Amino acid sequence: MTVRGAGPSGEDALIARYFKPLATDPGAFGLLDDAAILKPSRDDLVLKTDAIVEGVHFLSDDPPETVARKALRRNLSDLVAKGATPAGFLLTLALRGADEAWLAPFARGLGEDAGQYGCPLLGGETVSTPGPIMVSISAFGHVPPGSMVHRSGARPGDRIAVTGTIGDAALGLDIIRGGAAASVLADNAGAKAVRDHASAAIDVSDGLAGDLAKLCAASGVSAAIDIASIPLSTPAAAVLARGAVGIEALISGGDDYEILCAIPESRFDAFAGAAALAGVAVSSIGTVISGASEPKFLDAQGRNVPLAHLAYSHF
Amino acid sequence: MTVRGAGPSGEDALIARYFKPLATDPGAFGLLDDAAILKPSRDDLVLKTDAIVEGVHFLSDDPPETVARKALRRNLSDLVAKGATPAGFLLTLALRGADEAWLAPFARGLGEDAGQYGCPLLGGETVSTPGPIMVSISAFGHVPPGSMVHRSGARPGDRIAVTGTIGDAALGLDIIRGGAAASVLADNAGAKAVRDHASAAIDVSDGLAGDLAKLCAASGVSAAIDIASIPLSTPAAAVLARGAVGIEALISGGDDYEILCAIPESRFDAFAGAAALAGVAVSSIGTVISGASEPKFLDAQGRNVPLAHLAYSHF
Repeated sequence: MTVRGAGPSGEDALIARYFKPLATDPGAFGLLDDAAILKPSRDDLVLKTDAIVEGVHFLSDDPPETVARKALRRNLSDLVAKGATPAGFLLTLALRGADEAWLAPFARGLGEDAGQYGCPLLGGETVSTPGPIMVSISAFGHVPPGSMVHRSGARPGDRIAVTGTIGDAALGLDIIRGGAAASVLADNAGAKAVRDHASAAIDVSDGLAGDLAKLCAASGVSAAIDIASIPLSTPAAAVLARGAVGIEALISGGDDYEILCAIPESRFDAFAGAAALAGVAVSSIGTVISGASEPKFLDAQGRNVPLAHLAYSHF
Repeated sequence: MTVRGAGPSGEDALIARYFKPLATDPGAFGLLDDAAILKPSRDDLVLKTDAIVEGVHFLSDDPPETVARKALRRNLSDLVAKGATPAGFLLTLALRGADEAWLAPFARGLGEDAGQYGCPLLGGETVSTPGPIMVSISAFGHVPPGSMVHRSGARPGDRIAVTGTIGDAALGLDIIRGGAAASVLADNAGAKAVRDHASAAIDVSDGLAGDLAKLCAASGVSAAIDIASIPLSTPAAAVLARGAVGIEALISGGDDYEILCAIPESRFDAFAGAAALAGVAVSSIGTVISGASEPKFLDAQGRNVPLAHLAYSHF
């Protein structure tokens, strides 16, 4: 990982100091080269890239640890949604300068997540920008050949399930708690449960409602969701009960890093059991239905609750 | 490849229209999913990421085709320097909006290069930014296990060789010529020649002098370069002869996309022969010497020519 264009310099040394300890995989060559290696495998390699931009996906005064975690977790939750076991990642960091006060906690947060989720830094690049900070990550994971889970396999009658709880990030509760992890990222058995049982899956990184709409569109189906079944954390449920926010806010934005998936009815118990063994809570929140309409969100009386907008749009 | 956060929208459709034709590899799933697959291989997979930023690495009014080519070629030349055969790439594009007048030629330039160099678009992400455009690419290539060429293998006595010509990009001649390709990218036999014969290699993407300094630093050696042996295109040589610029300008900046490598003396003829068969011109420009000093650039009388700055520094 090098500062592009600069010869050996203070910035190179700074970046080496903070990122080299994260490059624990032998294929990273201690970040001394400008490329990395993944050794041959009998598995398919799942490739995913995602980026976050200051002022769009995070705020300038967000803790750098949280920014790092957000950038990596967006990609990790995507790998898990594909049923893939993380293998490593490449980082491209666009910065206005090499600011130690920002880099040190950023690298710390990144390293903690990389260690916890078994996804080492393989290499990367730092480039200068006069604009907002941008953190671009490409993450790699393994699945047995042909077993990647797609967005497009959901069939009418499938159960719609979601892992963990939804909406904490939209409320900022994740930052208050230091970016508590989605449990599904923490154990590769979670990815295996998705791979073994889901007909389709997507990670919830732009809001449950919007990501569900994408899964349905890719599968050519619709869905009926029971709002009361959407799993909320105790604090999020309390905020909702006090009327400070509506359910729309909780399901229309936020980096939940949970997995939304369609599970054939006959496999649901096996899926929930495998997830439970991995320490991952699973909630059944609705059913895949036929048709091309937007997914429906139904209240306790079965009435359709219109959502003003399904996801935070970046354009 | 999706516009992050947006549901099905005009922007999604626009991006699908321009990028889907580039996703020719079956592992790209026609960009309908948000991840891609590389099938198992017996080779090591070389991973490389690199980014360019508007206002830093390219200008706002540079032709979008040229911007796309620059972003991809920086990565491709890095793969060739590793001795790797390109397998595909992921694209992350940060834009202020989905501007068809920019996207259409960008995708055209990217697609032409991806086709010419056998490196298909596997997937990607478009994110919104209020700041400069950023094009971040992660590129993947294959080498037989353990055969990746490093920066760090140069040994005193090795010949220093460079492919093609140097300095056209620094003079802007590449843009005038529509971004004429470095021949070494165009034929996988070029990568094989590097892999089979080089003790160390680096791509010339930040200027010959700076990239040579990096190779020497990584290898723990120095170098003596014969300035008159540095290969120049006819137009570049003419500009130099007229005195409009000095040699420093030609070797201190510019995206040459050529390969600079150290070749053991006993292998030089075999290397040059293999490169010639691949249609790649090779010039011997100097010798690796022991020591930790900066590489020396010598004039026809053997006098050391000090270079004011060895590479364009981005910080």
